[in-house]
Order: sequence, then structure tokens, then C-alpha cells
Amino acid sequence: MRILLVNPNTTASMTEKAAVAARAVAASGTEIIAATSRMGPVSIEGHYDGALAIPGLLSELKEQKAGGYDAAIIACFDDTGLDAARSFADVPVLGLCESAVATAGFLAQRFTVVTTLERSRVLIDNLVRRYGMGARAKVRASDIPVLQLEDPASGAIDKLRAEIERALSDDGAEAIVLGCAGMTDLARELQDIYGVPVVDGVAAAVKQAEALVSLGLSTSKRGSYASPLAKPFTGAMSAFAPMRAAS
Amino acid sequence: MRILLVNPNTTASMTEKAAVAARAVAASGTEIIAATSRMGPVSIEGHYDGALAIPGLLSELKEQKAGGYDAAIIACFDDTGLDAARSFADVPVLGLCESAVATAGFLAQRFTVVTTLERSRVLIDNLVRRYGMGARAKVRASDIPVLQLEDPASGAIDKLRAEIERALSDDGAEAIVLGCAGMTDLARELQDIYGVPVVDGVAAAVKQAEALVSLGLSTSKRGSYASPLAKPFTGAMSAFAPMRAAS
Amino acid sequence: MRILLVNPNTTASMTEKAAVAARAVAASGTEIIAATSRMGPVSIEGHYDGALAIPGLLSELKEQKAGGYDAAIIACFDDTGLDAARSFADVPVLGLCESAVATAGFLAQRFTVVTTLERSRVLIDNLVRRYGMGARAKVRASDIPVLQLEDPASGAIDKLRAEIERALSDDGAEAIVLGCAGMTDLARELQDIYGVPVVDGVAAAVKQAEALVSLGLSTSKRGSYASPLAKPFTGAMSAFAPMRAAS
Amino acid sequence: MRILLVNPNTTASMTEKAAVAARAVAASGTEIIAATSRMGPVSIEGHYDGALAIPGLLSELKEQKAGGYDAAIIACFDDTGLDAARSFADVPVLGLCESAVATAGFLAQRFTVVTTLERSRVLIDNLVRRYGMGARAKVRASDIPVLQLEDPASGAIDKLRAEIERALSDDGAEAIVLGCAGMTDLARELQDIYGVPVVDGVAAAVKQAEALVSLGLSTSKRGSYASPLAKPFTGAMSAFAPMRAAS
Amino acid sequence: MRILLVNPNTTASMTEKAAVAARAVAASGTEIIAATSRMGPVSIEGHYDGALAIPGLLSELKEQKAGGYDAAIIACFDDTGLDAARSFADVPVLGLCESAVATAGFLAQRFTVVTTLERSRVLIDNLVRRYGMGARAKVRASDIPVLQLEDPASGAIDKLRAEIERALSDDGAEAIVLGCAGMTDLARELQDIYGVPVVDGVAAAVKQAEALVSLGLSTSKRGSYASPLAKPFTGAMSAFAPMRAAS
Amino acid sequence: MRILLVNPNTTASMTEKAAVAARAVAASGTEIIAATSRMGPVSIEGHYDGALAIPGLLSELKEQKAGGYDAAIIACFDDTGLDAARSFADVPVLGLCESAVATAGFLAQRFTVVTTLERSRVLIDNLVRRYGMGARAKVRASDIPVLQLEDPASGAIDKLRAEIERALSDDGAEAIVLGCAGMTDLARELQDIYGVPVVDGVAAAVKQAEALVSLGLSTSKRGSYASPLAKPFTGAMSAFAPMRAAS
Repeated sequence: MRILLVNPNTTASMTEKAAVAARAVAASGTEIIAATSRMGPVSIEGHYDGALAIPGLLSELKEQKAGGYDAAIIACFDDTGLDAARSFADVPVLGLCESAVATAGFLAQRFTVVTTLERSRVLIDNLVRRYGMGARAKVRASDIPVLQLEDPASGAIDKLRAEIERALSDDGAEAIVLGCAGMTDLARELQDIYGVPVVDGVAAAVKQAEALVSLGLSTSKRGSYASPLAKPFTGAMSAFAPMRAAS
Repeated sequence: MRILLVNPNTTASMTEKAAVAARAVAASGTEIIAATSRMGPVSIEGHYDGALAIPGLLSELKEQKAGGYDAAIIACFDDTGLDAARSFADVPVLGLCESAVATAGFLAQRFTVVTTLERSRVLIDNLVRRYGMGARAKVRASDIPVLQLEDPASGAIDKLRAEIERALSDDGAEAIVLGCAGMTDLARELQDIYGVPVVDGVAAAVKQAEALVSLGLSTSKRGSYASPLAKPFTGAMSAFAPMRAAS
Repeated sequence: MRILLVNPNTTASMTEKAAVAARAVAASGTEIIAATSRMGPVSIEGHYDGALAIPGLLSELKEQKAGGYDAAIIACFDDTGLDAARSFADVPVLGLCESAVATAGFLAQRFTVVTTLERSRVLIDNLVRRYGMGARAKVRASDIPVLQLEDPASGAIDKLRAEIERALSDDGAEAIVLGCAGMTDLARELQDIYGVPVVDGVAAAVKQAEALVSLGLSTSKRGSYASPLAKPFTGAMSAFAPMRAAS
Repeated sequence: MRILLVNPNTTASMTEKAAVAARAVAASGTEIIAATSRMGPVSIEGHYDGALAIPGLLSELKEQKAGGYDAAIIACFDDTGLDAARSFADVPVLGLCESAVATAGFLAQRFTVVTTLERSRVLIDNLVRRYGMGARAKVRASDIPVLQLEDPASGAIDKLRAEIERALSDDGAEAIVLGCAGMTDLARELQDIYGVPVVDGVAAAVKQAEALVSLGLSTSKRGSYASPLAKPFTGAMSAFAPMRAAS
Repeated sequence: MRILLVNPNTTASMTEKAAVAARAVAASGTEIIAATSRMGPVSIEGHYDGALAIPGLLSELKEQKAGGYDAAIIACFDDTGLDAARSFADVPVLGLCESAVATAGFLAQRFTVVTTLERSRVLIDNLVRRYGMGARAKVRASDIPVLQLEDPASGAIDKLRAEIERALSDDGAEAIVLGCAGMTDLARELQDIYGVPVVDGVAAAVKQAEALVSLGLSTSKRGSYASPLAKPFTGAMSAFAPMRAAS
Repeated sequence: MRILLVNPNTTASMTEKAAVAARAVAASGTEIIAATSRMGPVSIEGHYDGALAIPGLLSELKEQKAGGYDAAIIACFDDTGLDAARSFADVPVLGLCESAVATAGFLAQRFTVVTTLERSRVLIDNLVRRYGMGARAKVRASDIPVLQLEDPASGAIDKLRAEIERALSDDGAEAIVLGCAGMTDLARELQDIYGVPVVDGVAAAVKQAEALVSLGLSTSKRGSYASPLAKPFTGAMSAFAPMRAAS
């Protein structure tokens, strides 16, 4: 089984970190193919960055078709471009937020997602509500720019830990979800420290991707995720024109 | 007052139709500047088309800054790129769906949105829920490809009328919202036929844009719509890199 | 265009303040006709006052028909009598709360309404939920009796500012809605101080009224806002008996 | 124990029918004092009628204080004036809709309310949602003018039965709530016919009133139902000015 | 009228306390038959205890059929086994939580349930949401093991009072619901201290049971509470095999 | 990895069918240990059967501890005893409904669960709502007694197919979830027939169990799933008394 892990931002070190996390949990027969977007923002912080990361993401999904993959993961906790990717692809596509909150839902009745910047908090809260976890999950921001997570000297981890502690004391959180792909290396350690499940989206998405592939399940092509209709795309986007008509 | 009306698909005849509708309701001092996206799909039908229409939309928002505008309208009922545009712009930005359902909410306690294809139905239903109208509004699809609305011989209007009639008889709809920018020319006639308010998103958005501008209100830059952070964008997206840091 | 602004309490100085605010934002061709209820409470604080303000409100709507008006605004943030007025009138009717929260919804994903007394807080929270903004808006009371807003020496503004500051720090509010018609003169100044959109219901309602009239839209007479059925009214209420049968 | 049953419309025959129903279920020590509003509409069909019935309702609550009562029931399924009455009174006040749906909730997980006219359907649906039963209860209208329920030859009962049968077959209703005070005499017979619980609001409200009184519980005067503040009321409403200050 | 009050834990002193509370509010013609489960946990604290209390509860419901009863109450605030008991019994069955929150709903628009241990908080919050009060009620735990409520020297009451005070100051609670059967003796005193309604589930359930019986209403046997189908039960559970087929 | 699959009803042929389905999708290193409850109903149809199946389920969870297992699955779509089992066990516990609807959520925005009897429909609908899928999923009953699924001549599959067809035509379902453990062998064939994803709970639960174990995640022991407190259990339930204190 080949799982394509696409980092929709263009920072290769984040791709590498996510790939390490993915490979650490992948089943023995699973190959993780890591790809970094080749166009768009170096990090995804808020709606503007996210929207402009999607063409780069879709390009990777298309480019990598040559080599073949059985499922794809979008390695950003904002689930950037997830709906578009599901419409495009013939294989299952997983987002980190959706995978992580579904996983946390098996472990705890109430939990808290701790993300980076305030500008991402409501964006993720809207995702959590759409995924049906609005009554069970809170979202907190810890005031960490995404790329500071790449720098051990930034103090980012202290801020993250302080916010987790507030989630435990004030929210009655029974589990924690790490709300950024760049936190993927911290999950196990934080779980040991706090004694509650700490869910990382990269790892969760890998297991959901494996699950769907081995179950022979893929995105429904009936209704909202129907394949793109054949039509012209113009200008700089012309390469994205769908080749084939939807059934 | 100058209102920029951007059609995020690349079909100029739809832009023109929307511009006519916008000018028909604009206040005497309001100038409607119509722009058509120069890159992306010729129509927006589903998530894939929508995501790939956003760079073209944002380009127009940026290009037209030279001439200046006081508010912007995204002329697609899917509210394509609305969150990104609000983060980007310094002026109010309105979407058709959000404007139309808010307007319908002043007229009726229960109403139905009638859109084009089944693939757009759940997408719009998700918007309606996010805007808080999930308990008050239903969404129906009438099985009309968007560009058939440009062709009087297509039978599209008959399909639309049949679906409106189902909304009135089966949903207890007290008003109708037309769920596609391409239906903007039909609102008045359908209102006369059915004797209930028929809300068109283009017209509704123009009035909301005028309202916000004249009230001195613009998108909050605190929290989820904070201005994009200064950072590099790479590859084909490098032109989108934000110039200025967020406050 | 003539917009009738009815203050459903009997304090003429509040009517005057609201009329000033309304005229300040009205379009050049819009005439604001201000009317003060001639029967009922001097201020509306809670359910009892509100219910007993409705006959006075409906009387003004009826009396002013002679002069003619194209839309009506109920100048109380509790949206007192809004449903009854919509059933009665042949023209659009706007409430302050509904207009303000719909307007705020175009500006921010999360916002806070700051009202006067605790007894009004849940009443307004119920309105906010009914209008679909329950997941996006909080309501706070600032412990100010309504008529203290007429007295600059009352300290009311300090209390209001303190509550706005709590909304910003504790709620993650991205915008503020002023939850009383008597606060209408403070919006612009508070917006300047706090740097977030501050929405006043009077101003918002004027623009919504203008929008509906210029769009040729009025309250649906199908379903919940159908015109009153012809029937006798007895005793002190006999003057309210509807003249005409509903269609 | 003395329970005041106020019919907020002015049709004495409906009061009498409700009083018969109330006395049929009252405990041996309970006296039902029936009162008919002396000002307002002869029947309550929609928002306009309802709002103008409230002064008459509150007048009866005030007038009957001389004789004393331990709880009050508002004998209209729209729960007309319930919030105002709770703020006014020193004793528990019950509405028919709230009492009936709470009672049905002990008997069935899903149920349907069958009311009279379409114009009342959404009004009652809004009540049902506010009372927390939106996910469990549907509301249907059977196209019966209220006063036809007083006329055995009107065919009203056949319409009501047809709608109950649709509720059972199409909604999966496990119980039925009769959505008009004028249907109170039909509950037992319909329960026998259909073999599911049929809940009448008058009877339900009597038992809830008895329950609250015997438990020593009354409306909270903290927060939204705080007693009216002492203040002037003007014009035809001056008799309603509260005498005493709220604590 | 005979009401069976079953304590689903095996601590007879708690049964006795609940029986005293029940008899204190029962109507003159009502006989309270108190029964203590003869198998299961000595107190119900969390899901495991609760599930294993159900066979003992159902045994009592079955055993006491010989003597006859007109309604049954499950004397635990977790509403342990309520759905199973309603399916089993031919008479109305009431739970404490459902009865208490429905009762509180007649008295206050917002209220707080104060229970014992944190492990019961979310369990009760889930009940409150299912009963439709999620938007109106908060649930708080006061860190009291259930059986400490039987020991006046335990300090339990001080903890309970501290939590009630937090509910009043922080939640805007207008009423309090006592969230454990073992608190039944404290309601009246706490109501006197805090001046807001304090609702006890045992007392509330007695009045609801009396109400349903006197109204001739019982659990719907259509749909989710249909009588158990005749089928074999094996092993230690064989005594529970239903005797009669469902209609 | 050893996964314990417990059938909480006592019909061994259903256990066998579920074990076959589980082994068909299990990873190469996963051993499925199938166990059949030794006390309780032969099938679980409704609340009564379900509650009385829990002791047998918990007994198996306890008995099999000797052999060791890394996760457990409760092989009934009603998620019978899931909360109790999660409190009891030291390893992850999965239910079929929760696993299936979470899986379907990755594949489709709207889907329908097709279960057996009407008495299970609302029970499952309540689960679906609690798991957060109430806005995305409908539940339908196909009028099939559970054990008829074991009999190819019963016509059960025709009824099931008819209901799936109604889900596709009337609900706009984009995927189907099979709502009974006894349907597990039909998923692949139905998926081929209808061309939409068909999710079986047994298979879904196996993959979720494998995922959690390989991620080093287990049920949170903080809050609602805290380990049972040490305390006496009496009578026939005494064997269930927890041995160890919760942390």
C-alpha cells in the first residue's frame, strides 16, 4: 500500500517531520511517499494562506498519479483543500483535523484541540463543528507561529504546554488533540507527561488511510464529491482542467 | 461609492448578467465595477472548480486596488474564496449565499434555496448551516448545469420552476432564494408568478455592500480574518505573497 | 423612500436619539419618520415591559399609514413585537437585534452583544439563537438601567466599556454589537477606541430597510407572517381588529 | 390549591371547554378558577392575534389576585404571553405547549404536534425548539380555523384525524400532542383510536401546576424572569405600571 | 395510586432517604412503595456501576408486579436503565434527571445541575442534551463521593454549597438542580439560603408520576419503547426472558 | 496484536459471521479472538435486550483478560455497553456504530444508516446524534428481525435492498452504513450493486482497533471513563465488583 503524504505548504523540513511521524506508525506493508507543494505559502496561517496552498496541493496529487498511490493525506491541520482533493482523487483522501478528532472521539467524551495562532482557532473550530464534534471539543490557540515549531529555542513548546494545562484544568478535557502538523513529534512525550491521550493528526490520518484502503472503501462519487465535470480552465489554471467527464 | 463585483469563473457573459443585475439595484451614487477572473474554470460546479477559482478571484481583488473600490462582491453563490478574500481585503467583502440568506431571514421564517446541480446542494447546505440558517432553510438542486442558464432554449427555467413548486408544496417555504449567480435575471419574474419573496444573491450583496460602506463598517481584522502575515510564497503562487505584516 | 422608526417605549428623548442616528446613515433619498409610542412603559427592561409595549407599537404602525411609509423599524434591541408587526404590515419591518447580528455576521466569525441589564441577557440570547447566531455570538449584560444611558453622569459608559473589554479578552470577540437602542450614539467612538467593528442596531436596521425596499422585497405573506384574519377584537383592544381578510 | 386558568382569547365557550378538561384531571383538593380575557381577539391565530391578547391575559392575572391563586395556566397552545406572565406573577405560570411537550417527552422519544392553521405551525415549531424538543418533535398543521373546533359539523375532526394518521405513518411518531386548547375534549377518544399516547395541553398544564405548587417551587426571580421594575406606563397601558420594585 | 420507587443501588439508607422525600411530596392518595435493588453496586458512580445496576433494577420492577404499581421511579440521577425499564413496564417510568430538568424548565430559562463526581458530569451532561436542555443547562461536579452524602461529618455539604455559589456567580444560573438522589433532603434548605428554585429529582419524579397516572398516559409502545420481543435469554440472565410477545 | 471481538448476544452463528468478517480485513499480524456472551438475550432488539446483554459482555471482557488482548470490539450495532466497557477496560474498546459512522464520515458528506427493526431506529439515531453525525446521517429501519439475517430464505435481503434504494432516492445518501452486525457479509456485494461506499461496522471497528493500538492510544482514564471505583457489588452481581481503585 502506497500512501501519498502531501505537505500543502512549501517548507520541506515540515514535510520531513511529518513523513517521519507517518512512517513511525505505518504498517509494515505501507509505503509513505512524502511530497512538498511546489507553489504557495511557506506556512499556512489563516484563510488566505490556506486558499492559496490548494493549487500546489492539487498539483502534487496529480503529479504523483504517475507513480500511483492508494490514498492521500493532506499534512495540514486546517484540512486545506480537503473537499477539492476528495472530488479530484479516485482514492481516499484524509485530512489531519478530521482524522484526529474522529480518533479522539473513540478515546474521550470531551477533549480540547490546541492549535498555533488565534487566527486559526475559529477556522479549526468551524471544522470541528462541521465534523460533528462541536459539543464535545473545544479549540484553543497557544500563540505560536507555525515555523517556530521548527526551532527548539523558540519557547513554542512551553507555550503549548501551558495551553494544554489550561485545557485540563478549565475545560475538563479528557484528551488533547495537537492542532498543527508541526507538532507531530511531540505527541508521545506530552502523553507521557499529562497521562491523557494526546492525538497527533499525521499519525491518525495514516491509520485512517490504511483502514479505508484495506476495507476497499473510497470517497463516494455520488453527490458532493462527484468527479469534476469536464470543462475548460483558463489562464494560469489551465493545467487543472479535468480530463474526464464525471460518471 | 465603488463596488467591485468579481465573477470568480471566467465566463464573461455571466459577469455581464450579474453586472446588469447589480446596477439595476445599486443606489444612485454607487458605481459597479465588474471584473471577470482571468484564470480558472469557466463555471463553478462543486468543490474542485471552486478551489481553483480562488487564485483568479484574489488576483482581481489585488489588480483592481489600483483603481480603488470600497467593497467587493464575489459573484458566485458558493461564496467561493469568501474567507480568503475577507482576510486579504481592507474593505468589506460580500458573498451571494451569505447575503441572500441573511436577506431572506428578514422576510420569512422558513425558506428554500434552489440551486443548480446535486453536487452543489450539500456544499450550499453546509454554508447555510454555518451562517446559522440550518433550522430555517432547505436546499434543493434542480439538475441544471450552470451554463445552461445562459441558454434560453435549454429548458433550465422549467426545471427551476418545478423545483420552486416542490419547495412551496413540500417544504412549507415562505420565500425562495435563487442559488446561482446565473439566475439573477429571473428573480423579479418568479416573485410575480409565485407571490412569495424571491431573493437573488447578486442584488442582495450589492445592498449589503452599500450598507456596510455607508455605516463605516469593515471586516474585523482581529482573529479569524486578520490580515495575511508577511511570508514568502513560492512557485506559480509567488505573486500572492502578502506585502505587509498583520498588525 | 420613507422609513418609519417607531420607538416602542414612550420616552421621546430616546426616540430623538435613535432618529438622529438613523438620519446620520440614511441615504440621501430616505426620509426617517420618527414616532414614539403613546401607550406603554417608559423603557423596556424584560419580558413584561416588552409585551405591554406592543399595542403602542402597533398603534403607531397603523396611525402612520395615513402618511405612508415604505418600511418600518422597531427601535428596541429586544425586537419587541417584531413578529406581530410583520404579520400586520404590508411593508418590510426590521428589528434592531436581527439587523445588527446579521450585519455583524458579515464582519466577523465570532462576536459579542453587550446589553444593559441581566434580565435582558437571556431574552436577547434567545433571539440570537433563533436568528441562527447562537454558535457565533455571546451576550453580556453590563448592569446599566436603560434610562441611565440618557444621563452622561451615570457612569453607564464606563460599565459598558468594561464589559466590551471583557468580551475582547475572554470571548475572543472579533466584533461588538451594542445591545440597546439607547447606545446608538456611542458606536463610532467605541469602534475607534477598540479597533474592532462596533455595530449599532438602529443604523443597521436603516440600511436593511433601505435594502429591502430598493430590492422590491417585503415580508412573505405565506405561512407564519400571513396577514391577520378578519375577526372581532373586544374591549380595550377592539380598535386593533383587522379590517381585511388574509388572502 | 387554587389554579387560575386564563383563556387569553375572548371566546367564553372555549374557556368553558378548557375548564371542563382541567376539572376532569384536577386533584381532589384543587379548585380551577376559569377566566376569560375581556379584551383582545376572539381566537388566537398567528402572531398578531397573540401579541394583542397579552394585555387581556395580564389583566386577568392581576384582577384575580384579589381572590388569590396558587398557580396560573395560559389556556392557549401558542404559550401567548408566557414570559411576561412569569415575570409578572408571584406564582408558577404554565403554558399549554411547554407543559404538553414536556409531558410527551416522558412517554415517547419521537412525537408530533398537530395544530390548526399553517400560520401557527412555525410559531409552535419555534416554541418546540426553544423548549429543547426540536430534535424529537415535528409540528403539523391540519388546516382548521380555531373556532371550527367549536362546531361539530365543521369537519374539523376529520381533518385532525387525517393529519394524525400522516404523523404516524410518515414521521414515525410514537405519541401525538394536540396543538390547540380547543382540541382538549378529543384527547381520550383519539388515544383510544390510535393506541398511542395523545397529550392535551390543558390537562398537562393542570398537573404541572399542581406539581410545582405542592413542591413549593415557583418561577425564579433571578435573571430573565425578575419582577418588573417600578416605572411609569403611559396612555391606555397606564394601569399596567408595576407597583413594586424588583428585589 | 401506588408508585414504586426503586433504588438501583443496594444501599438501603439511600432508599430510605429517597422514600422519605417521596412521601413528603406525594398526594394524599398516593402510596410510595420503596424497593432496594438486591444485586449490583452499593452506589452508582460512572458508567460501569450504572450498567451493572440495571439487572437489579429490572428485577425489582418485575418482582413488585405481584403487588401492583401504577408508575415507577428509578431513584438515581443518572437515569440508570430508564430506557430498558420503559420498554419493560406497562406503566409510566420516571427518571430523576429527566423529571428534574423538565421541572426546572418551567421555572427558569437557564439553570445549573450540581452533581457529585467528575466521572458523572459528562454522563449527566449527555442526558441533559438528549432531553433537549443542552442550551439552557450547565452541569457541574462538586467532587463528593456519593456515600459521603450519608455522612454529615464528611464536609460534602460545604462542597455542594461552594459549587452552587459558583453556578450562581459564573453561570448566570436562575435555578439549581440537585444532581444526585442522595441530596434529596437538602433541597428546601438550599432554596431558602440562595433564594432561587432548587429542584430535587426524587420529588420532581413523584409529581410527574402522579401526573401521568392521573392523566391516563403511559409510555408509548409504538417504536422505541415497544415491549420486549419474546425470545430466549441464557445463563444467569435467563430469568429476564420476556414472557409475552410485543404487539 | 490480539483483538477481542465479543458478541453481546448469545447466538454463536452471529459471532462466527462477525469473526469471519473481522478476519477478512484484519492486518496480517492481527489475531481476532471471538467470544460469545454466555448470558443474556439471543439477539439484541431494543433497549431491554441491550441492557441485559451488558453483564454477559463485561464477563467476557473480564474472562478473556487471562489470555490477554490489546483492544476489544463489541459486535452489536447498538454499541451496547460501550461506555461501561470503556470504563472497565485498560485497552481501547470499539463499538460498531461509532466506528462505522466515523468511517462513513471520511467518504461522504451525507449518508444513511439502514438497520433492522423500527424499535432500533431511534436508539441508533440517538447514537448517531451523540457521535455528532445528526446533521449528516439519517437512520432507516427495514423491518427485519435480527435472526432472519441468518436465514437466506427469509426475504430479509430484499427488504434491506429496498430500503437502501429509498435512501439513495429520497435522502440524497452518498454512502450507506449497514446498521446491524448480522449484515456484515453483505457489504461488499451491496457496494458493487449500488456504486456507493457501503460501510460495515465489524470491519470498520477492526481497523479502528488496530489503529488505536498501533498509535499507542487508549481510552482516557480522566473524567467520564475513569476506572470503576473499588466498592462492594452485592447478590448475583458480586462477581463484578472492581478489584482495583481508580487512580
